[in-house]
Amino acid sequence: MNRGPIGIFDSGIGGLTVARAIYDLLPHESTVYLGDTARVPYGPKSPATVRRYSAEILAWLERQDVKAVVVACNTATAHALPDLQAASPVPVLGVVAPGARAAAGATRSGSVGVIGTAGTIASGAYRNALLTERPDLAVVEQACPLFVPLVEEGWFSHPAARAIAEVYLQPITAAGVDALVLGCTHYPLLKPLLADLLGSGVALIDSAEETARDLAGLLQRRGLSAPSDAVATHRWGATDDVERFARLGALFTGRPVAPVELVDLEATAS
Amino acid sequence: MNRGPIGIFDSGIGGLTVARAIYDLLPHESTVYLGDTARVPYGPKSPATVRRYSAEILAWLERQDVKAVVVACNTATAHALPDLQAASPVPVLGVVAPGARAAAGATRSGSVGVIGTAGTIASGAYRNALLTERPDLAVVEQACPLFVPLVEEGWFSHPAARAIAEVYLQPITAAGVDALVLGCTHYPLLKPLLADLLGSGVALIDSAEETARDLAGLLQRRGLSAPSDAVATHRWGATDDVERFARLGALFTGRPVAPVELVDLEATAS
Repeated sequence: MNRGPIGIFDSGIGGLTVARAIYDLLPHESTVYLGDTARVPYGPKSPATVRRYSAEILAWLERQDVKAVVVACNTATAHALPDLQAASPVPVLGVVAPGARAAAGATRSGSVGVIGTAGTIASGAYRNALLTERPDLAVVEQACPLFVPLVEEGWFSHPAARAIAEVYLQPITAAGVDALVLGCTHYPLLKPLLADLLGSGVALIDSAEETARDLAGLLQRRGLSAPSDAVATHRWGATDDVERFARLGALFTGRPVAPVELVDLEATAS
Repeated sequence: MNRGPIGIFDSGIGGLTVARAIYDLLPHESTVYLGDTARVPYGPKSPATVRRYSAEILAWLERQDVKAVVVACNTATAHALPDLQAASPVPVLGVVAPGARAAAGATRSGSVGVIGTAGTIASGAYRNALLTERPDLAVVEQACPLFVPLVEEGWFSHPAARAIAEVYLQPITAAGVDALVLGCTHYPLLKPLLADLLGSGVALIDSAEETARDLAGLLQRRGLSAPSDAVATHRWGATDDVERFARLGALFTGRPVAPVELVDLEATAS
């Protein structure tokens, strides 16, 4: 048993879909979330830069006495997870492996699609994770750079969102996939639109939910779960524009996100 | 006469539309361009953060012995121009005042529209500059957060771009403006689409071209122009992902953008 908080981080607000899945699945676990909104997005940044930023955030989370860390950012998971796991005294979990495992289990046709930011897709992280699970899979990947700004505009079902999604999904549908990994933390908010366009024959794999499930298993195995009488408290920090974080955070989590602490990673780096 | 280069900077690649206007209008002037691609976009960042980043870039440009600086970024102009002008030993020019002046001169109806990023619009910089020019103007502003990612996808005339532009332009057309300031350096690439949607009765004011014109006047007045036998050389630096900068840079300038130097502002800060 351990009442310490779980650390969760992302380049910005998108990781709050992962936080939400954790709040829902593990109601007794306290959390502390850091969104690096001053340096968002990580997607177009080089792997070396993403690794450096992720290490700074890990150091900050360690100072909050977290008992485990969830990298709720596909780009940071793709580029920095092994480094973070090597550096951290507590377990570190990414979003890629849980989503890949669920997709490999869900497909019947053996053809799996992955959508994500340009950085995540270019990293090949999902392709590698899927082929590690099942080397016989056919994997079709598609970068969808306009999905994040569409979500941040709140245009989940706008005709423009539909027109954009139709273009991005074209190679996915052409390949006849029956499982699609939503490989970006913003994408769960587009689920109804994607489900409508793809039909019921395609399973939508939400990395956020799968990651929460993996975290639950990990806490139990390591004896790190909070006791059932624990009352969860949630904290949020952002490296810039805490008002925007609070506003969009409510959209992403479906609950009030406040107060949001302004964190200066550069000043606190030791 | 002065053969020194003109410094140009932006949060990323968008400012290259301003650089292009300078290359075209002032063919004897050498330039050095810095795109802060590691920290792009500035739009959602707080004014204090944008001022700090801009000051770091100004210091770097000064070390390149520039004779003048163009802030080719609407957000940086909105938040940091007075600070930069106070700190710099050479003249510093922003993109807001030239665009506002041109729009105030172009309108007959007295109703002017401004489109830009969320940060630029929230700053009120164009509204203030327009009302300083002509206090009787009616100014309608509209943030268009999806335009930058659309341009970076190269979707200048995609049906989705048209659907998105129709939504954003609705309050602009409803107000009966006859001049529209393209208050973001990415937007000149959407000019054909915007002209098609708005019709010939609305003058599209390209801040990039207006800024190049203002720069030409400033160099002449201060005796800083390059002699007519000068052969211009152009340099480009970026703080991350120089390959992407080179690729998109060619799209923005219509000419090869290479080599691109990787600049580490944090390491070089003194």
